[in-house]
Amino acid sequence: MKTIYSEAHRLHDGQAELIDGKLLPCFETAQRAEMVISRVREVRLGEVLPPQDFGRKTLERVHRASFLDFLENAWAAWSELGRNCDALPVIWPARTLRNDREPETIDGKLGYFALDAGTPITAGTWQAAKAAANVALTGQKLLASGARAAFSLCRPPGHHAGADTYGGYCFLNNAAIAAQASRNDGAEKVALLDIDYHHGNGTQTIFYDRADVLVCSLHGHPVQEYPYFLGYDDETGSARGEGYNRNYPLRWGTGWARWSEALDDACKHIAAFGAEVLIVSLGVDTFKDDPISEFKLDSDNYLDIGRRIAALGKPTLFVMEGGYALESIGLNTVNVLSGFENAA
Amino acid sequence: MKTIYSEAHRLHDGQAELIDGKLLPCFETAQRAEMVISRVREVRLGEVLPPQDFGRKTLERVHRASFLDFLENAWAAWSELGRNCDALPVIWPARTLRNDREPETIDGKLGYFALDAGTPITAGTWQAAKAAANVALTGQKLLASGARAAFSLCRPPGHHAGADTYGGYCFLNNAAIAAQASRNDGAEKVALLDIDYHHGNGTQTIFYDRADVLVCSLHGHPVQEYPYFLGYDDETGSARGEGYNRNYPLRWGTGWARWSEALDDACKHIAAFGAEVLIVSLGVDTFKDDPISEFKLDSDNYLDIGRRIAALGKPTLFVMEGGYALESIGLNTVNVLSGFENAA
Repeated sequence: MKTIYSEAHRLHDGQAELIDGKLLPCFETAQRAEMVISRVREVRLGEVLPPQDFGRKTLERVHRASFLDFLENAWAAWSELGRNCDALPVIWPARTLRNDREPETIDGKLGYFALDAGTPITAGTWQAAKAAANVALTGQKLLASGARAAFSLCRPPGHHAGADTYGGYCFLNNAAIAAQASRNDGAEKVALLDIDYHHGNGTQTIFYDRADVLVCSLHGHPVQEYPYFLGYDDETGSARGEGYNRNYPLRWGTGWARWSEALDDACKHIAAFGAEVLIVSLGVDTFKDDPISEFKLDSDNYLDIGRRIAALGKPTLFVMEGGYALESIGLNTVNVLSGFENAA
Repeated sequence: MKTIYSEAHRLHDGQAELIDGKLLPCFETAQRAEMVISRVREVRLGEVLPPQDFGRKTLERVHRASFLDFLENAWAAWSELGRNCDALPVIWPARTLRNDREPETIDGKLGYFALDAGTPITAGTWQAAKAAANVALTGQKLLASGARAAFSLCRPPGHHAGADTYGGYCFLNNAAIAAQASRNDGAEKVALLDIDYHHGNGTQTIFYDRADVLVCSLHGHPVQEYPYFLGYDDETGSARGEGYNRNYPLRWGTGWARWSEALDDACKHIAAFGAEVLIVSLGVDTFKDDPISEFKLDSDNYLDIGRRIAALGKPTLFVMEGGYALESIGLNTVNVLSGFENAA
């Protein structure tokens, strides 16, 4: 399996995120991707390719133009005020407030577009986010050209980013952008399987009213876990998309038995849907030692996940999402890919 | 004029607020109220009284029970996790997320009820917030008993707090609670004039569909200024409340000439409304040296504000809101009260 990777991810290197009432060093670090690419090379998974550039139009098929403008210009507007730390929002359009007008000033804009205060915008965020989207798109092109599978080692991750919202360490929704590109390249039906520990709220909302992209997500239950405000099992899609969104919210402490049941159910629905292409939002923060998550998967389970996904027999693009146990992220991620390859 | 004051405000003593991408020492400090009470005593404004306790039922006329439960229990749930810093939210129900379900865990609850990450909840916040509401209610009782005016030296402030939202350094909406108490004591029409630098979003939303409480607010324009997502001049009330909300959004740099025109217009509408009671949300962060605000009022202007409010000839309750220039908050606040008294 080929891996697409760009060192441009290092341009996004946040200093701190707000968590537990403190500004702590970001869990989403450049080292994460470097641990994964090391492991890819160590096990000789396959060739490592740089991304091609697909340009802004491709991004606009998923994201609102005003949101892309914001991401492109946020750092300049922020640093122009003499601020030398990462940009974080301080207020947001909460319940009772309006969310129909983008403010003029940067603090207002940050709150308008953000989901959280854990996703710093830095000088290089826009460049890194664009590179990550291109990494996903380059992987998608391999599939469109006949590859059975590819691994887009995206960083920053993407699944929390909506059409015009960012958060959860995500700016552009790499997996959604790839799914849309598959549709534009002629696939009639695309399935998106999100196995990151956190609900893929961005992906869900982007495709919520569409029947051409089935979205299935296994994740920490929103009553307990980030992002808290989406990911319930009664969210099944709207309008023509009714029935094409499936959530598997799982309680803290979920281990392999319960988790793999949910995976099998999701795979059953993906098979029945008849997807021509499968995109996997691959987070490994389901791991038992993940520092910010509460599931209990072991490293060997990731091999099994790869095998079960391979059994669907679909052209499959793996898109990197979360996973914060640095010492294990390489092993666990590549286990999924190796499990998939070995089941071929 | 009598002042109502409780030292219980000191129980709310936040360490840090998220601002400009950093956790900085809170601008909303205990010293603020102490500077004001000193000045009240220095100029012998009148007797200083402690608050009476009006109990939770009075609060529930304005705030949702589940919100009061949250405020009462948030610190315990937070500190139970071993966290020893102030409680701040990290994510919120942004656009595209659901806002109809309160999560079970404290990080979810904080985001559900909060408007911002600048309003820490501490061990003593609930006690202090209740005391501030009682300070407002005790002032209202003086009016109901025939006083021409009273000064409720509330801290923490209140005007950003909605029926079930907190933020902007506010937890319980002291002015709204007093306005509602006036209604319950028999006043048919109550006017609420908010002259704090920031839009009184909480007050607006609490009374937005009601014709019995006229709300007028002069404030920094939301395209430039906190709270960004409310306070436009096209927000005029809804349903039976249509026409009973008036906003005067003013651009950065506004000085006395433009500001006092807006005040005069608001006073004209309050006079025409025929309020039996006037409640003034008194912030002095309109001052030229305020560290977080952008208006240009001078200390003498506050005397004039007091005179113009006195000219309405209404029983008037002044409720303390914002003002962060410590060295001038006492002078400026008491200037409003003295200006009012001297115009009697």
